[in-house]
Amino acid sequence: MKCRTCGGKAAVNMRQHKLALCKEHYLEWIPGQVERFIEKYAMFTRQEKILVAVSGGKDSLSLWDILQRLGYQADGLYICLGIDEGIHYSSESQRLTEAFAVANGLKLHVVDIQKEYGQTVPEYAHRTHRGQTKPCSVCGLIKRHEMNRVARDLGYDVLATGHNLDDEAATLFGNTLTWSGDYLLRQGPVLPGTPGLARKVKPLCRLYEREMLAYALLRGIDYIYDECPFAEDATSIYYKELLNRLENDRPGVKLSFYLTFLEARRNGLFADREQVAAELHPCPRCGQPTSSDGLCSFCKMTDRLGAATTVKEG
Amino acid sequence: MKCRTCGGKAAVNMRQHKLALCKEHYLEWIPGQVERFIEKYAMFTRQEKILVAVSGGKDSLSLWDILQRLGYQADGLYICLGIDEGIHYSSESQRLTEAFAVANGLKLHVVDIQKEYGQTVPEYAHRTHRGQTKPCSVCGLIKRHEMNRVARDLGYDVLATGHNLDDEAATLFGNTLTWSGDYLLRQGPVLPGTPGLARKVKPLCRLYEREMLAYALLRGIDYIYDECPFAEDATSIYYKELLNRLENDRPGVKLSFYLTFLEARRNGLFADREQVAAELHPCPRCGQPTSSDGLCSFCKMTDRLGAATTVKEG
Repeated sequence: MKCRTCGGKAAVNMRQHKLALCKEHYLEWIPGQVERFIEKYAMFTRQEKILVAVSGGKDSLSLWDILQRLGYQADGLYICLGIDEGIHYSSESQRLTEAFAVANGLKLHVVDIQKEYGQTVPEYAHRTHRGQTKPCSVCGLIKRHEMNRVARDLGYDVLATGHNLDDEAATLFGNTLTWSGDYLLRQGPVLPGTPGLARKVKPLCRLYEREMLAYALLRGIDYIYDECPFAEDATSIYYKELLNRLENDRPGVKLSFYLTFLEARRNGLFADREQVAAELHPCPRCGQPTSSDGLCSFCKMTDRLGAATTVKEG
Repeated sequence: MKCRTCGGKAAVNMRQHKLALCKEHYLEWIPGQVERFIEKYAMFTRQEKILVAVSGGKDSLSLWDILQRLGYQADGLYICLGIDEGIHYSSESQRLTEAFAVANGLKLHVVDIQKEYGQTVPEYAHRTHRGQTKPCSVCGLIKRHEMNRVARDLGYDVLATGHNLDDEAATLFGNTLTWSGDYLLRQGPVLPGTPGLARKVKPLCRLYEREMLAYALLRGIDYIYDECPFAEDATSIYYKELLNRLENDRPGVKLSFYLTFLEARRNGLFADREQVAAELHPCPRCGQPTSSDGLCSFCKMTDRLGAATTVKEG
């Protein structure tokens, strides 16, 4: 297999694109693709301040690397979840993230959930009804809240996450199996900002997981190999495996599933639901928009569990 | 495993419904379910004249059997496609259908495509560009046209087909993978009649394929076991296998995928597309509604291939 650009030995072959490239041209091609998606979906400009949510994994570190290479103003945000589980998951991913920031001269913000709110994410998961069956759901709630809070408080224009195509296709698949209207109407490369919520963008949403893996490896990025120990049984991993089987039989189906969805929605497949956005109001405690009565889900959880702790100690 | 109704030995266990039944109560339960779906989706009444499309397979013969047992006025329509392929597929399925009609004292209409239009379905498939890669697509076009024609010409109120849940879920899955808006907006238990097109209903749409198989076997219905020899590589079979794997891991997912789709659409997930229906006009030859310019797809095909034959013979 030869590189399409230079004819040298190919390092990566992408069946779905009928494209093989050598290491050098692959490491050029990926940022070129990301730049194209940033412009196509009007994610942000070089004048805007970007906050990249970095977990220490291959996707988010590669995203940060690519944005830096492309000349965007991108600072990092690491959220320490306090996950240990015998493999020092959080401390190891924090170490790798900090090392990446130092090596590249990048600015990194660190939020420690336990220091900020008194409990780690596993503790929150363990002590909530939702978290006992779905720890990833509680973790997601906490991360979304904190990403929004930091982006707003520090004046970032946009929040970028490292979701790749496999993540997006699996989410779409899950939302389609249950026809979850609110999610189907919102999922996409860009979630526009609203009062109190930063714009959210996913510059890697059209790149396959294995493309990002190849980028991180060829670029020599030192990332955390382990999956989060709580995610092992996660539904999203099940959907990813199923989509991988489909992709194996029909190269490109994952991408076309996602792209035809975006296209159909842009062409008006779904009904407008502007009233949904209108029903949001600011949480009286944190100020982030919520559809709940009273406090938002995050403040309800921290409020309730914080109060329980106080009673116990008193 | 015991029958939930009588405590006797169960003949069928339905994991997705957490329900096991003996032969006698299963053969009562299935028509009861079908009656419930007919009423729920307002498919037809006992005063209306129903034309059942029967292929000689387990689903359509069982449907005809059930409608008769429930006291509906249901005549049959068998369309002879002229498929032989060494296994006498069409002649054998016609023989079984006719035997069923005679044994049950039911009225059966038979249309022979070759006698009516000069060529068998495999000949049409072979001689059209579309048919060479997708013979099922040409066959579907012909069957839809003929079912509509007979229903209209003979004054039936409604056309019933034996599509089961596995058929519907596979179709929905395929239309979702490509987000085919027009199909997503139309697929369902009832397709309302329009000028020139009979109402179409699918009374078995919520029953699993294996439930229909069990019904046909326990009821002693003699049906054609072979799949159509042209369907072996069909995409729908691929999707059915994929959904079966999913169902195996999560009993009930096939049904919930279909039902949550219907519910989301009823609740307004999709945009209204009334203008699409308005753009249909009657085909100048057969009178059936079409969105094509000039002749409908069926008349275009028979016209073109008929003309070619004439030239050859002349």
